Formats: sequence, C-alpha cells, structure tokens
Amino acid sequence: MSTGFFGDVGKIGYEGPDSTNPLAYRFYNKDEVVLGKRLEDHLRFAVAYWHSFAWPGGDPFGGQTFERPWFGDTMQAAKLKADVAFEMLSLLGVPYYCFHDADVRPEGATFAESATRLDEIADVFEARQSETGVKLLWGTANLFSHRRYMAGAATNPDPEVFYYAAATVKKCIDVTKRLGGENYVLWGGREGYETLLNTDLKREREQAGRFLSMVVDYKHRIGFKGTILIEPKPQEPTKHQYDYDVATVYGFLKDFGLEKEVKVNIEQGHAILAGHSFEHELALADALGIFGSIDMNRNDYQSGWDTDQFPNNVPEMALAYYQVLQAGGFTTGGTNFDAKLRRQSLDPQDLLIAHIGGMDCCARGLKAAARMIEDKALSAPLEARYAGWANPQASKVLAGSVTLEDLSAKVLKDGIEPEPRSGRQEYLENVVNRYV
Amino acid sequence: MSTGFFGDVGKIGYEGPDSTNPLAYRFYNKDEVVLGKRLEDHLRFAVAYWHSFAWPGGDPFGGQTFERPWFGDTMQAAKLKADVAFEMLSLLGVPYYCFHDADVRPEGATFAESATRLDEIADVFEARQSETGVKLLWGTANLFSHRRYMAGAATNPDPEVFYYAAATVKKCIDVTKRLGGENYVLWGGREGYETLLNTDLKREREQAGRFLSMVVDYKHRIGFKGTILIEPKPQEPTKHQYDYDVATVYGFLKDFGLEKEVKVNIEQGHAILAGHSFEHELALADALGIFGSIDMNRNDYQSGWDTDQFPNNVPEMALAYYQVLQAGGFTTGGTNFDAKLRRQSLDPQDLLIAHIGGMDCCARGLKAAARMIEDKALSAPLEARYAGWANPQASKVLAGSVTLEDLSAKVLKDGIEPEPRSGRQEYLENVVNRYV
Amino acid sequence: MSTGFFGDVGKIGYEGPDSTNPLAYRFYNKDEVVLGKRLEDHLRFAVAYWHSFAWPGGDPFGGQTFERPWFGDTMQAAKLKADVAFEMLSLLGVPYYCFHDADVRPEGATFAESATRLDEIADVFEARQSETGVKLLWGTANLFSHRRYMAGAATNPDPEVFYYAAATVKKCIDVTKRLGGENYVLWGGREGYETLLNTDLKREREQAGRFLSMVVDYKHRIGFKGTILIEPKPQEPTKHQYDYDVATVYGFLKDFGLEKEVKVNIEQGHAILAGHSFEHELALADALGIFGSIDMNRNDYQSGWDTDQFPNNVPEMALAYYQVLQAGGFTTGGTNFDAKLRRQSLDPQDLLIAHIGGMDCCARGLKAAARMIEDKALSAPLEARYAGWANPQASKVLAGSVTLEDLSAKVLKDGIEPEPRSGRQEYLENVVNRYV
Amino acid sequence: MSTGFFGDVGKIGYEGPDSTNPLAYRFYNKDEVVLGKRLEDHLRFAVAYWHSFAWPGGDPFGGQTFERPWFGDTMQAAKLKADVAFEMLSLLGVPYYCFHDADVRPEGATFAESATRLDEIADVFEARQSETGVKLLWGTANLFSHRRYMAGAATNPDPEVFYYAAATVKKCIDVTKRLGGENYVLWGGREGYETLLNTDLKREREQAGRFLSMVVDYKHRIGFKGTILIEPKPQEPTKHQYDYDVATVYGFLKDFGLEKEVKVNIEQGHAILAGHSFEHELALADALGIFGSIDMNRNDYQSGWDTDQFPNNVPEMALAYYQVLQAGGFTTGGTNFDAKLRRQSLDPQDLLIAHIGGMDCCARGLKAAARMIEDKALSAPLEARYAGWANPQASKVLAGSVTLEDLSAKVLKDGIEPEPRSGRQEYLENVVNRYV
Repeated sequence: MSTGFFGDVGKIGYEGPDSTNPLAYRFYNKDEVVLGKRLEDHLRFAVAYWHSFAWPGGDPFGGQTFERPWFGDTMQAAKLKADVAFEMLSLLGVPYYCFHDADVRPEGATFAESATRLDEIADVFEARQSETGVKLLWGTANLFSHRRYMAGAATNPDPEVFYYAAATVKKCIDVTKRLGGENYVLWGGREGYETLLNTDLKREREQAGRFLSMVVDYKHRIGFKGTILIEPKPQEPTKHQYDYDVATVYGFLKDFGLEKEVKVNIEQGHAILAGHSFEHELALADALGIFGSIDMNRNDYQSGWDTDQFPNNVPEMALAYYQVLQAGGFTTGGTNFDAKLRRQSLDPQDLLIAHIGGMDCCARGLKAAARMIEDKALSAPLEARYAGWANPQASKVLAGSVTLEDLSAKVLKDGIEPEPRSGRQEYLENVVNRYV
Repeated sequence: MSTGFFGDVGKIGYEGPDSTNPLAYRFYNKDEVVLGKRLEDHLRFAVAYWHSFAWPGGDPFGGQTFERPWFGDTMQAAKLKADVAFEMLSLLGVPYYCFHDADVRPEGATFAESATRLDEIADVFEARQSETGVKLLWGTANLFSHRRYMAGAATNPDPEVFYYAAATVKKCIDVTKRLGGENYVLWGGREGYETLLNTDLKREREQAGRFLSMVVDYKHRIGFKGTILIEPKPQEPTKHQYDYDVATVYGFLKDFGLEKEVKVNIEQGHAILAGHSFEHELALADALGIFGSIDMNRNDYQSGWDTDQFPNNVPEMALAYYQVLQAGGFTTGGTNFDAKLRRQSLDPQDLLIAHIGGMDCCARGLKAAARMIEDKALSAPLEARYAGWANPQASKVLAGSVTLEDLSAKVLKDGIEPEPRSGRQEYLENVVNRYV
Repeated sequence: MSTGFFGDVGKIGYEGPDSTNPLAYRFYNKDEVVLGKRLEDHLRFAVAYWHSFAWPGGDPFGGQTFERPWFGDTMQAAKLKADVAFEMLSLLGVPYYCFHDADVRPEGATFAESATRLDEIADVFEARQSETGVKLLWGTANLFSHRRYMAGAATNPDPEVFYYAAATVKKCIDVTKRLGGENYVLWGGREGYETLLNTDLKREREQAGRFLSMVVDYKHRIGFKGTILIEPKPQEPTKHQYDYDVATVYGFLKDFGLEKEVKVNIEQGHAILAGHSFEHELALADALGIFGSIDMNRNDYQSGWDTDQFPNNVPEMALAYYQVLQAGGFTTGGTNFDAKLRRQSLDPQDLLIAHIGGMDCCARGLKAAARMIEDKALSAPLEARYAGWANPQASKVLAGSVTLEDLSAKVLKDGIEPEPRSGRQEYLENVVNRYV
Repeated sequence: MSTGFFGDVGKIGYEGPDSTNPLAYRFYNKDEVVLGKRLEDHLRFAVAYWHSFAWPGGDPFGGQTFERPWFGDTMQAAKLKADVAFEMLSLLGVPYYCFHDADVRPEGATFAESATRLDEIADVFEARQSETGVKLLWGTANLFSHRRYMAGAATNPDPEVFYYAAATVKKCIDVTKRLGGENYVLWGGREGYETLLNTDLKREREQAGRFLSMVVDYKHRIGFKGTILIEPKPQEPTKHQYDYDVATVYGFLKDFGLEKEVKVNIEQGHAILAGHSFEHELALADALGIFGSIDMNRNDYQSGWDTDQFPNNVPEMALAYYQVLQAGGFTTGGTNFDAKLRRQSLDPQDLLIAHIGGMDCCARGLKAAARMIEDKALSAPLEARYAGWANPQASKVLAGSVTLEDLSAKVLKDGIEPEPRSGRQEYLENVVNRYV
C-alpha cells in the first residue's frame, strides 16, 4: 500500500536531544505536556501541499530540478501525488495539511471541469483523511498563477475575472467545509499592482472589500465554522500588494466592518519583506485581536524575495512562539510549513529531513518560550517597567477623563521633570539566552 | 536691517528655463497660472526651521561642520537665528515655514522656563511674519531629542513623560494658533520600540490613541482651525515606529474614531524606508480620505536611513504631484522641504541654492502633472481599462446585492473564461516621458 | 516576407520631441551627430533575444502569459522566432542583437544534438544578418537554466559539469565568431552558492579562475577578436554570486592575471542589487580599466529582485551615459536592453513600444550628458576642487617619494590646520538639472 | 583604588550554564581547553573604548542619554575615563582593548597639542596595562569625526588634509607600538563619497593606495610587528565607502601590491550592510589569505544602518567562529566588541551585563564550532561532495594543462550528460542544529 517513494523509511519517532539519527525527532515529542497541553496540540503542524508536492524546483532563472513520478497533468498523476502526500504526513506524524485547488488537480478546460476534478480529488482526500487521521488545517484557492489573474482576481479591472474568482472561492470553501477544514485562507498574490499608472487603487480596494464581504457572508450562510484568514504580504509577485502587513490588513478590515470576522495568517518571510520582525507581526495581530495562524518558514535576510526556507534559527523561533503563547496559543490556527526544499535537494528523504528539522526547531522554540512564561522571565520585568501606569491618576488619564489642560497644569504645579530609567535591553537579551 | 549672513544677494527672481544664474528660478514663476491656480497657491512651499537653521551638520560618525553665527544656547542667538530665517524666507519668496519648539528656543531649566522662552520667540516670529508676509504652515513639538523621551513620549512606560509631552504639545498648539499656523503636526520619532523584550506594544498603542484624542479635543476646545497631521515613518531612530506608513496610521485612526479628524503629512524619504513609492503613499492617503500635506525631500535609494536630501528627480516628482492634484491639491497642507544640506555644503549660499533647486524641480514636476491632467494622458486609458465595471450588472456586484452563489451560477451558465488584456505599462511610461 | 506578427506597422522613424505617435522616436535620431559621432554609433543599441522572444511571461507565482506563435520546442518554431526577431530589429532600426544558445534552439537529447541545432539556427541568423545589416553584439551560453547546472557550471562540485560547460562555451564562442559577434559574455548565474554549509568557496573560486583562463586562451587560439565580458551580479538566483560587483570581478581578474583580457558588462539592475548606483559601477570600471558594455534596464527600487524593466528615468540615464562618455564611449560594447516586458504587456506592439521608449530615453540621456561635457558643466568644478593636488609638493606625495615622517614634520613645522571647503552638492545637482 | 563607578561589583566569574546570576559567565570559562587551546587564547576578547566610554548615547534624532562622571573635554576627565575603562576590563577579565586617539584624549587646539595629550594618556595606559595585565589589541586614528575630514582623510580633495591624516596616523602607530599593540586598524569612514558629481573616484583611489603604502612602509621602518588591518564597510556615514567589503579591499590591495602586507578586520554589521552574511566575509577573507580579526557586533536585520549591538544569536555566531577556526583561528587578531549599549541602557551595570552576554554567546558559539570540527560534521560531507575533483583527470584540468577543445572532445566522445546530486542543505542545517 506504500507508494515506495520514500524507500525503506518507517514512522519518524522521537529519540531525544542526543540522537544523531537524521530521521528522528530530537525535540518534538508530540505527547509531551507543556503549559498543560500536548506539544502536538500546541504546535498543530501542517504540511503545505504546493511546495512539497506540486513545485518542480524552478526559479526565475531555471526550470524543473525535481523528478517526481506524479508530475504531469493527468488525474492519475494527481491521485498518485495525493497518495504520496498522505504517506509523508503519516510517516512524519504531522496532523494537518493545507492546499490550493491548483495544487491538487490539473486545471480543466472549463471552470466546470476544474470543479469536477477538484471534487474527485476531494473524494481521495476524504478517504485518506479517514484512513490516516490527518486533518485539513486550511484550504485556499490559487487566484494568482493562471494568466487570467495576471492583473488581479478580486481587484481585476475586468469584472468577469472577479466573477470567476468568486466562483472559484465558493467552490474551494465548499470543498474545505466538506473535508472538515478548520480555516479558509485568502492570500492575494495578485491583489496589488505593477504600476500606479494603470491602476485605480481606490476602486480596487473597494472591489477587494466587496469580495471579502461576500466570502464572509457565504461562510455564515453555509455554516462553515472555520476561520477566514488573510495572509499579508507586501509585494512579490506584484510591486505592491494591498494586504501589505498586519497593520494594513487591520485598517482594511475596519473599513469594511470585518475586523471581528477575519483573522490573519502570518508568515515570517512576509514579515521580513515588509520590514518587520516576525514577532512584531505576531504581537501586533494579538494587540489588534486578529491573530489566527502562522506560516513558519524563514526568509534569507540577504535575499530580497520570498525564499520560503524551512526554519532553523531556534532563538528567533522561541521569540515567535513566545508571542503565539502570549496571544493564547492557536485555536483554529496552526503552524504551517509554507516552506520549500532548496531546489538542489533532490532526494525523497530531503522532504522528510526538512520537515523533521523544522518541527524540531519549532518544538525547541516553543518549549523555550513556555519556560520563559512559567518563570515570568520577561513578563515580570515588563510589569515593573510600566508600573507607574497602575497609579490611579495615571489610569484616569488612559480612561479618558483628563485633558491636555489638566496635564499641563499638573506639570507646572508639580514641577515635573521626568528622569529616564534604563531600558535594560542587553539584560533581557541575556535572559532570553538562558532559555534557548 | 539685513543680518548680512547671505552676503550680497538680492531677492531670487524668475528668469526662465534658459537662465544659468544659480540664484534664479528657472521654473518657479509663482504667479504663473496652472489649472486655474497660481503656482504659489498650488505648491505652498515651506522651509523647515530645524534642518536649515538648527542642525549643525553632524551625523553618527562626525560632529558639527557648519559654523553659524547663531549657534549657541542663548536667547540672543535664538533671535539672530530667527532674523536670518525670515531673511532667507524673504530672499527666496517662500510663503511658509515650519518649526519645532526645540528648533527655535534654547531648552530651559524647567518646563515653565522653556515655555516662557517659546513665547518670547513667538513674539519675534509674529513681528517678522507681519513684516514679511510669511506665514506658518505648521508648528510641532520636539518630543524625541531630549533624553526624557528616550523611551517614547505618549508611549513612555513612565506616565510622567506622558504628562510632560501633553503639556508640551498644549503649549506648541497654543503658539501655533497664535501664529496663525494652518496645521499642527505630530511625528512620533520615539513612539515605537527598540526591542519587544521590554515593550508592551498593545498598551503603548492605547496610550498613543488616548494622547491623540486629547490633542483633537483640545484643538476643538480652543477653536484652532488648523488640521492635525500625523507624519508616518517606519523606523529610525527607533527600530519600529507605530506610525509606520499611511495604511498603519489609517488603521490606528479608525480604531480610535479619529479618521475624520486627523490627516497625514507624507514624506518621500519615509515612504521609501517603509518599502513604498512616494506616489503610493499619496494615492493611498487620497483613497482613504486622509491626505493632508507633504514633506518633499528625497532619500538616497542606496542608503538605508533617512537622508533628507533636497529633491532633484523631476520625473519622480511629477508623479508625486500628479497624485497631489488627483487628491484635489492642498487645502491647509503644502510642500515642506524637510531637507537638509549635505554636511559638506558649508556656504551660506548653499542654503539658498538648495531651496532654489528644490523649488524649481517641484514647479517643473507640478506643471508636467498638470499637463497630463489637462490632456487626460493617464486618466483616459485608466477609465477605458476599468470600463467593464460601468456595466449595470458589474455595478450591482460592487453595490453589494450579489452573492458568491450568484456569481458561481453565472460563471457556470455563461461559461465565462476571462481573456486577459494588455496592461500597457511601457506605453504609459512613454506617455509620462512626453511630459517630463 | 513579413511574419505578420506585428501587424500593419512600418519602420519606426524619428519624428522629433513633439510627436505623440507611440510608434515613432522623439529623441533617437540615429544620424544626429553628438560629440563628433552619430547617435547610432554612440549608443550601439542591442535587443536581447531571451527576454523579447524566449520568455513566456512567467514569474515565481504564475506561468505563461504571452501567447506567441513560435512557442514550442521544435526547430520550426525556433526559425519562426528568428524571423520575428529580425523583423523587429529591422522595424526598430536597432543595429545589434544578443543571444544565449538556449534562447535560439530547443535543447537536444545530447550535447551533440544541441550543438547541431545551434549551427542550424546560426545558418538562419547568418542569412538574416546579411539581409538586414543587423549585427551580433554578443553571444553567450546559458549555463544556469538546465538542472545539470543547479549547483554551478564552472564552479560545480562535479567536474563533469565543468567539462560540459566548457564544451558549451567553446561551441558558443565558435558560433559567436562565425556570426561576427563583437563580444562574448559570461554571466555566472549559478556560479555562487545557496549555503556555505555545502560549499568550498575557495575551491570554487579556483575553478572559476581556471575556466575563465581557458576561455581567454581559446579566444586567442582561434583568433576571435571580440572582447570577453563578465557580467557582475550579486545574487539571484543564488544567495551569493561570485561575480558580485565590478570591484569583486576586478580582484578576481587580478588574481588570475586576466585584468587586461576581460572587461565587464554592467547592468543597472545588478548594480542596484549590489547596493550601488549604476553610475558608480560605470565610474569604477573606468577607473580600473575594465569598462566594456552595458545592460540598460532598470530595477524597481522597491523590489528586492531583478525586475529587468525598460529604462525610463532620463535624469538617471544622463548620469550613466555621462560615465560612459567619460570612459571614452563604447568600443566593442554597446547598450543592450536586457529588459523584459511586464508580463501583462501582452500585445505585439508592446514589444515595439517598450524598445522605442527605452531608446528614446537613452538618446535623451546621452545628449544631455554630451552637453554637460561640452560645457564642462561638471568637469570644471571638479578640476577646481582637486586643484591643490596640482601643486608640485602634493604631486610628489602621490608619486611616492615622501614618507609619513616627512608629512608629520611638515604638519608640525607649518602648523597645518586644514579648513574645509563646501562640497557644493546641491549646486551641482541643480547644474545637472539644467541639462535633463 | 576603585573609581566606584560600577558600585559593589566584584570580578565576574564563571558559574556554568545553570547560573542565573546576571553578573556571571555561563559559558565563558577562560581556561577551558577547546581544540587544544584555552578559550581566552581562542577568543582574544577586546573592549572598544569609543562605544563603551566615549559615546554619549546620541543618535541622529536625539542627544546625550548617558551621564558619566568622565564626560567633558579636560585631561582630568580623560584620566578618570581611563581608570574606569581599565576597571571594567579587570572586572570582566577581558584581556584586550582597542582605541582611537579621539576616544582617549580631548582634541587640542593644534596638531601638536593633540599629540602631546595622546602621549600623556599613553602614559596612563602604560601604567594601567602593567598593573592589570590587560593588553592592546589594536590602536587606530579617528580620521572621520572632525570637520576637517568631512570630505575624506587620505582621499580628500585638499592635500593638506592628506598630510594631516598622515601625521595623525604616524602618531597613532607610534603610540600603538609603544603600548605593545598587536595590530593597527584603518577604517576609512570618510574615504568614500556623498555624490559622484563632485568626486574623482579614480584619483581618490590612487590617493588611498599611496596612503596605505606609506603606512606599510612606516611600519617596517620603525619595526612595528603588529598587523595592519583594513576594516571594510560599504557605506555610512558616506553614501559609498571605498573599502566596501572584503572582495573590494582585496582588489585594492592587489592593485597596490599590498595583499601580503595588509589583512582585514571584519565586522558582522558591515558585512550585513554590504549584502553579505558575516560567515561569507570570513570565508572569503580566508580564501584570499587576508583574514585578520573580527568586530563581533550585530546589526539589526530590519534597520538599514549600523546598529552596533552586542551579539546574541548563538547559531549565527557558531557559523562565524566555524569560519574563524577553519581559517586557523586568530594570530594577532581577536574578537573586538565594536558594540554599543542601547542608548536607553543607562545603568553602569548595563555595560558589564552587555559584555558578559556577548562573551558568553561567543564562547558558546566557538565551542559549538569546535565540536563540529572535531566531529567533521560539515567537513566530511563537504569532502564527499567535491570528491570527483580528486580524480586525476579532473585535477589536471585545474592544474591548467587542458584546453576547451580537449574538454569539448571529451564530452562528445564520452557522451557526458551530468546527473545532478542533492545538495542536502536541509540535512546540513539540521546537523548544525545538533551543535547549537
């Protein structure tokens, strides 16, 4: 029943930090309880279908490097791909996967044919889910690869493309619901522009708002219980993408009254491209009440495009999971590896090894974050730093009953000349290094 | 009555494009009527007091290079500085200026003394304004240079700093109102963080919201008619500034119900640092209804910090003014040169020459933009590109009475397979090059 | 005899600055004499075969957008492509073209078959060159797209790839010589690394040096008179490319004793990615005696990857051509548009319009640069600035006969305390704006 | 005898990984032997006088934050500063320090006075070195802060500035020699340009070459045994610095025949600004035979300027020390913390804590690197990857006796079609994570 793709490899087990077995977990012991919850339930790992199974290894200067038995535009190939995908999920013990429609079925000659093919693959997925216990973290529609979307999907100057995108999203939500998906994601890869010279930014923003409202309405109408997630990215492929970063998405949601309906799926690489740290985007999303899920893949700091690499820097990851835990942890969200092998990593085992390494780093990072929380390593100094605001007079200021004139009078009367206090950044950095 | 600082230089006049006189305008003919308005009224130029008169030429690796007779911490020096400033405004024929409190008066030993000194300088300004006809575009408070603000002003962990900042802003609004200022600006240079390890981002955001609300309330209470402007910047001096860019500010304003009360002052250099083009930020501010004013100074594209250079690339400036004109032009806002001489430009005449060059480029850019508008050079192709949305059925979609199901049914029934059309970017770029 | 691809379009003519005909030149009057030379002979324009005829419009997030009748992997398609290419060259009146082997012929099943196919296409090119008068600016080998080169060509860990690359370059030089190519280019797209963890940087650098030496030897042995050019680029597709920038290439050439044999082909976009301005790279190449040719295509300043856009900012281009003219102008080199249409520019005429716009901007920039040179607009102030070094004592210092002790004694004896003088940057920027 | 500045703090001791004492080492056990050498002898730590003792906490938007009893322009203050500096070196047990002339003595009214003051401080340093056993890693001259250097030192358009710089460097080398300094560093902070419009790049490069040659000659003449080090930096404060990166410096040294005389001092932050990773610059310097010393301070990846922060990311530091060890370790060089406290870190103990954290991270990184070397964790796979080149035929190719024709014939005869092999990047990243 094995496809044989991964050769003679058994289920990946936990062997502890001292193991040198490349096909074992050193930190991800899924049943280990941290802050009262199993690691598996904390991390909620997912594999991304597109990078691991659909991407041929090309880049802007070169073509296919991977040779996979399932490459090809037939339904038979698509089914073999599904079999290998679920095989990998089972070998790794990863509980979730994510997919775009375009990853899993060949494009049909018509919309109708594409839809039928998607249903047919959904049958396969349903069966495999039931056999393996693997679940769907989120589904999404690919509204950016086909040439029809070259000038946007919801934000296209041609309303027919909007209709086509709407029909496609409807279909993908239907399939996501059928497969028990816990979220539905929208990444607007072409919802942006190449040049303002041919773009009516205001109109396109309205189109995007309308589209998202329709999606939210539909979700409620059909009783889909998953979370609708927007994935911010500042640019690439477009010069500018409307969902630039968490703050931009928030303003957009507020404008269309959707800030209680939609959350964000935050990717490290996208945060970096937007000029932020990953932990910034996570902290901000939490502050704004729109934290949803994460794509845990790193960008190369010296490359100005999305490199989608498997994560490997534990100190950085610890700070990210610290924010996730501060935000209360995942509810419907999870840790998706929107990461692709380097195109030179040709071997089937490279796929396993990359995920094992990423999962281990996540586990290590989360455990470090959890210990910092248990020890109040950062939260106690933080509370002390802002303690002045607990003073009743200061609280009144924030509550809104005090005016500029009041404060001016107070400064003059009390002769206030504030004396600064050390921010202790290096001390706190050293504290973090105790945990990672 | 002249201070003699600029030597034997008379009023800078307009001599036309063929002039090679470095002390003459080649394009800025202030009374020339463009799109029904005098150039002076379109551009509303302002000189920034800080860069031109208070900055000693230092950078992170070197100290003072400029030797100005008014440098020194006395009120006498401050008055000489004011005299030279208004002399330059008169020589250039610039109608506006902008200042921070800290630019114009030496810091006092106490808040009260600083305030008194500011009043004393305001007396001088009032007299000079009346003599010269020069007006105040905006005033602002420097809430970032003094060590008391090292951890923020409104967002400081210490409430006393919040109070001090509030008292300072009150004072600066009072003075701005007294001097007939047409706007009041808030640039939150330290309203951000160096590290999340010691920062409660959510709390600080609340503090900032409260502060801004107090400012707006005060403005109304005292009958100040000017516009309150926030100036976005992503970072520098802090690692992350809360007013990152136009989109971020918009979300913030929406959150605190201030989006009708506050507009933005957009700087080219800050746009660049945030990963945007200047025209993007302008177009977005217009789309969101918060366009206010501009800081017209450029950043070096190869330097990762704010270089605040005088602008000189006319094609880029034409695109910026195109957006300004599309937004209806300035109302209370204007074109402020938040630009500093290069620190090697030691001569008094360099100050004049830099402003002359910048003003000429602005005039040239605005005139090019105006001709594009008159010719519908860009707007006609734009309208054609989105023409499909004028179709009644498409309009209905945007109006909100259509569902995903409706559109899905339509795609299936009509067999819609959209055919993409050329975006014609190169054609439009060539069109722009006809005008610049 | 026309392929009909461009429809009813005749030869593109010069109509002068006031023309609004999108299919006419406004500045490129090829016979106009500037600084004693025809514009055509100054600019030496070339069209890049790959972007204009072989690229399907894909990017990392989407596939083909262009639909060209010659797409497909047959020799028949390759010949139609050649016909359209020479048709476009004739319509535009562009005197040169450039190509990679992989652009012009389908890959064969073996090395031998690929070579035979290349010869067959060279027959076509030879005929078309003879019919149209179009010439070959440079040829080059594509040593980066095929998966065999994924880990480098000359710098591959597998010597067989080195051999394969060597055989390929030999073939391409042979064809370039046969077609009268005036240069041969090496761009090492994969001569770099993705991670140092699997890379022996020192060894790979030696391999690259050996390879280049073999190429130079071969050139001399067969009597190829063209220039060997290296095209620097810092990264993309690799994380780090060995030919990072002009300075890096120079050090490499010095190391292998090739600095008199090899020159550089400098691209604006690559300069930007390396953190330089285009004019910097040009000025440096001239200073080092290795200036060869240029790729005149711009990068988007807000995008961190190679956007290869047609150039359109005349002030920037004037500064670039100023450096080209200062370097004595092109000898075997020229102005190659290594530029691709935006992938939304689907229409055949977009190809013409993009080149027309680019050529016009180049002509306009070069003419502005020439006028600056004629007027000594920049060179006279420059000479004045360094005039102190003409002093005999100062000259002696540079000539090498003076020691630190001598200068120390002089400073002490003469009580030297140097007084800085204005660098006049804003003045010079204004001067440039008189010309552009 | 204590200055009392650090309060009641004793010598910082090693307490092991489990210590939570912020004033203790957890990893830096100086006598621990790693790869046959004591940690102290491996790491050769140095404190930078300028950041820790001379910098007042200013940035481009704000002034002094630190209040140190030794601030002020008197010799008395300078001596107190020296006392505190050596006190800190002793408390930390750091074996080396580094300084610029301008850090340690107030500028005199004349060159002669500045020189005399430097001698006077050198007396103090000599005494303190002898008392404490602390040694001088390197001295250097500050040729960038004073306004006389605003347009460069060696590369100034005014030869008198060249003379002044020469006299200054002579003086600083003399003092460095007297104090037993093991290296002498040149960082050309102003050896670059703000604009090419006023710059003769070629001439300035020649000036720089002459200057460096004079320095090397002088060193030999006086018998200074230390290494001359150039510290590359791409930009900041200038727009472009001539010593851009390691590769650029190498080409420069080759050009002036100095590649055996001068080595490089590589800083992480400067590497980042130049678009490289730290380990890249280290590996390249080793490959080119010019590796000398390191400045171990990090830049913030989201800030486009030199942030000079204390290092804290152990996985990154392990990769850096891996390269240092591969290069044979330090000879005269060492690990200098060219790092400054964040300007909010006001407390005296922050100075200690920052250095303790940095040193601990270095020790941890070096120990991880050493274990990787002992295990051949990376070197064994590397050797296997390039094994093909050990083949005699392949060796002959590199040795230079084979031609393009030979290889072409071989490819054709043997029908070579190379098959790529996995680069195993993710596997190797996981291997590294076993050690950090």
